[in-house]
Amino acid sequence: MINALNRNIPDAALGYGKHGVYNGAFEYRGCEKRVIVNSRTVLPKEKKLLNSLDEAIQLSGLKSGMTISFHHHLRNGDETMKKVLRAIEKKGIGDLTIAATALFDCHTFLEDYIRSGVVKNIQANYMSGGIAQRISCGLLDSPVIMRTHGGRDRAVESGDLHVDVAFIAAPAADEYGNLNAVDGPSAFGSFGYAYSDARYADCSIAITDNLMPYPLTYVSIDQTLIDYVVVVDKIGNQEGIVSGTTKMTRDPIGRKIAKLTAEVIKNSEYFKDGFSFQTGAGGVSLATAEYTHRYMLDKEVKGSFGLGGITKPMVDMLRDGCFDVLLDTQCFDLDAIESLKTNRRHREISCSTYSNMHTKGSVVNLLDIAVLGATEIDLDFNVNVTTGSDGTIIGGSGGHADAAAGSKMCIVVANLFRGRFPTVVNEVTTINTPGETVDVLVTECGIAVNPRRDDIIQCLRKTDLPLKTIAELKDIANKTCGIPEPLKTTDKIAAVVEYRDGTLLDVINCVE
Amino acid sequence: MINALNRNIPDAALGYGKHGVYNGAFEYRGCEKRVIVNSRTVLPKEKKLLNSLDEAIQLSGLKSGMTISFHHHLRNGDETMKKVLRAIEKKGIGDLTIAATALFDCHTFLEDYIRSGVVKNIQANYMSGGIAQRISCGLLDSPVIMRTHGGRDRAVESGDLHVDVAFIAAPAADEYGNLNAVDGPSAFGSFGYAYSDARYADCSIAITDNLMPYPLTYVSIDQTLIDYVVVVDKIGNQEGIVSGTTKMTRDPIGRKIAKLTAEVIKNSEYFKDGFSFQTGAGGVSLATAEYTHRYMLDKEVKGSFGLGGITKPMVDMLRDGCFDVLLDTQCFDLDAIESLKTNRRHREISCSTYSNMHTKGSVVNLLDIAVLGATEIDLDFNVNVTTGSDGTIIGGSGGHADAAAGSKMCIVVANLFRGRFPTVVNEVTTINTPGETVDVLVTECGIAVNPRRDDIIQCLRKTDLPLKTIAELKDIANKTCGIPEPLKTTDKIAAVVEYRDGTLLDVINCVE
Repeated sequence: MINALNRNIPDAALGYGKHGVYNGAFEYRGCEKRVIVNSRTVLPKEKKLLNSLDEAIQLSGLKSGMTISFHHHLRNGDETMKKVLRAIEKKGIGDLTIAATALFDCHTFLEDYIRSGVVKNIQANYMSGGIAQRISCGLLDSPVIMRTHGGRDRAVESGDLHVDVAFIAAPAADEYGNLNAVDGPSAFGSFGYAYSDARYADCSIAITDNLMPYPLTYVSIDQTLIDYVVVVDKIGNQEGIVSGTTKMTRDPIGRKIAKLTAEVIKNSEYFKDGFSFQTGAGGVSLATAEYTHRYMLDKEVKGSFGLGGITKPMVDMLRDGCFDVLLDTQCFDLDAIESLKTNRRHREISCSTYSNMHTKGSVVNLLDIAVLGATEIDLDFNVNVTTGSDGTIIGGSGGHADAAAGSKMCIVVANLFRGRFPTVVNEVTTINTPGETVDVLVTECGIAVNPRRDDIIQCLRKTDLPLKTIAELKDIANKTCGIPEPLKTTDKIAAVVEYRDGTLLDVINCVE
Repeated sequence: MINALNRNIPDAALGYGKHGVYNGAFEYRGCEKRVIVNSRTVLPKEKKLLNSLDEAIQLSGLKSGMTISFHHHLRNGDETMKKVLRAIEKKGIGDLTIAATALFDCHTFLEDYIRSGVVKNIQANYMSGGIAQRISCGLLDSPVIMRTHGGRDRAVESGDLHVDVAFIAAPAADEYGNLNAVDGPSAFGSFGYAYSDARYADCSIAITDNLMPYPLTYVSIDQTLIDYVVVVDKIGNQEGIVSGTTKMTRDPIGRKIAKLTAEVIKNSEYFKDGFSFQTGAGGVSLATAEYTHRYMLDKEVKGSFGLGGITKPMVDMLRDGCFDVLLDTQCFDLDAIESLKTNRRHREISCSTYSNMHTKGSVVNLLDIAVLGATEIDLDFNVNVTTGSDGTIIGGSGGHADAAAGSKMCIVVANLFRGRFPTVVNEVTTINTPGETVDVLVTECGIAVNPRRDDIIQCLRKTDLPLKTIAELKDIANKTCGIPEPLKTTDKIAAVVEYRDGTLLDVINCVE
């Protein structure tokens, strides 16, 4: 089947989508139901604190063929998934589906469990490092289901993704399963991605390296949602949080793009009191936040909320009164964690509140400006942040498509060249964010506005910013890089890409 | 049918219970499922802030025969229900079921709506004042369903009580439906009873007299749970919160009982570091908190949590370090509201977290000592706080049966005489709390311990406290009061009393 973005969704992939193929960013309202949830009655004197992961897995009723879930707040520092799989393997359980919110290089060990049959399927909103590469090379028999962050919570809450047992790495827990992520040596700040799993899984197991006296003072996930608590030596390394995409750029081209982006923001109609803002965690996005911070102070613009993945530049903006509140699904650095812990104006929100399209209104719906990255972008502004030039998986939407769809002005920032590859192309390798939700592309060689947004074009024409059409940017790129060879992939599907509403947006084929 | 407490549940009442008759306090684990929930998809640019209650009712799809819900945090100061019913009446909608968490004298206006057919059925955990009296006199065709606070959340979450439209009085709201109860002129502190309604109703309408800029800084109920926001001039009067049962006793007999109770606490095995404590809001309970406060400071006992309905004495204890944390489902006075707003160690919890028996563990499960009131208590320690000497409804369990069941030592405090009526009786008019969950009775004439609790008896025998059997207390009472005439009631059932697990505990007949 061909979807609304002209992507061919093969029959083999259709079985993975319960909602058909993509038909436009705001066309499908979903089932408008939240699924029935299995619960459990815990009476007085019954204990929830167990002696081992082994005991918790036993009591959870986990069986071969079930789905287990993990959240990725510890990013490349996560040590919990490995501990859980080791315990599961010992029990002879296999054929599991891993429903992770994201996978990083630290999860490359999964290859062994896939080969040994403990793990059969994977779902993840984002994958990088060795595990992503192996999957691109055909490690799995069935495609990975890749969703947006909001789309995963949609799937969990609607029942599309039924989690049998959720394993929740918890930086602080009490014996009855109240959890927070701000206390303890493995604090990661916001518990954003774990809320829906805790609430909708049949069984939710908290794994902590910091058992605190009952009752926890600050609680993110409530005791009534957690079945068991297990203490381990270490759930992960805080240092692993600042990894991959979350480092500030020092590159002069990156800084040029960031400055241009901040100029676009400053000159837009959205840059006024009450302004709301999200940046990704990529280097250029972070630098954009720094410049925007400066302009807000210069122009005395006082925003309402900063959203996202929260980073130090956003914390600095909160501190300086540029925003009233930060709404945080994920802390990308230690400054953000500290701020969430100490500043009541820095508030964590669940990923569903952040961006689940099929709720009574997520925060992205009210977002003015989002600054997001791109690996590739096509002439219709469709964006790829999922696959690299060679076709291997190097990321995924995460919140990309969510923030793009919700925001009034979505700005994509990208170097026009990635080595010898052009960023603007005729056809992106993978679409994870539809062009109808992308408004502006900023590169070091100029700024292109989506022709759908004549209002923005008119606005920016009043400035001396280097406006170009996206076709002009593509020509510049091609003059330098030439036109890249068509990608060679196999017929095997490595992953299906769901849009945030659950429809099928694209497929990713295995590389040769 | 006869239940485990030997109460006759007539066939007419059986139809109201979906789970049969009461069979013991910890016998029934329920369905262990949370019900499927209708939701709604709100896309960017769609508004939730409406112009009037009328518009909200229109959009909610409310139809005759449906169930609408209200919470009672404003107690006798509530003005929201009246506004809602006026708007509903104008639309010609009738035969409604009102699922309130509690009704007070200020809700006596409901009589008119019942007589005019707008309202057909009522469910409430507690009823007092004119409306309770009218219902006792046969105002309704069908019995009121009276639950415990935890039992109502159980019913909502399991689907036994399906709320079509929840009307949520909100002291602070933003345009997208984030709510809190600490900001604004009608602040009532904790939103405890409204959480489940907001989450499980088909449509949740927030009614506020204090619209604040988006996003609210402190959020209790999240935007994804609220369909519409309506602004009215006033949701109620803060002064009405301190009413009825929430005034400190100055009566010397009451103070004597309170002191004896605090002595029981001090001499119990539970009075040590980590101790947790709940008092009701009755005058004697409040005075007990004061004495306990003193003893904790004297003995340097540092408790873990104070629970409940929170009052000034508990706030004072938190301030003085007697407790680490207060867990609050309902603020009973302005001191509690201010404390919740300003002290992060004073934390609101949903009523489900507080006391829903069919969850993965509510807070009452971990409670050491609860101090609760009684209108009547029988020789098996079964307690009535629902009906008065003349058989009319004057209250209801609220959290009474929940705290009794969860706590390790439940102390009931009561004057041995209420005017010419004895408090200890052969058979209580209504059972709302089973005797197997009640451990100690403290009166001005002596202390009786439930024979099931030999450990407590042994412990208190080491003191000079005036221990008696409950039969001895009854004899003292009878010597003064005589034995009261048997109550005359009609065959018509005014209310059925559900236990916290959903089983039928008792029925209340209409008075003549």
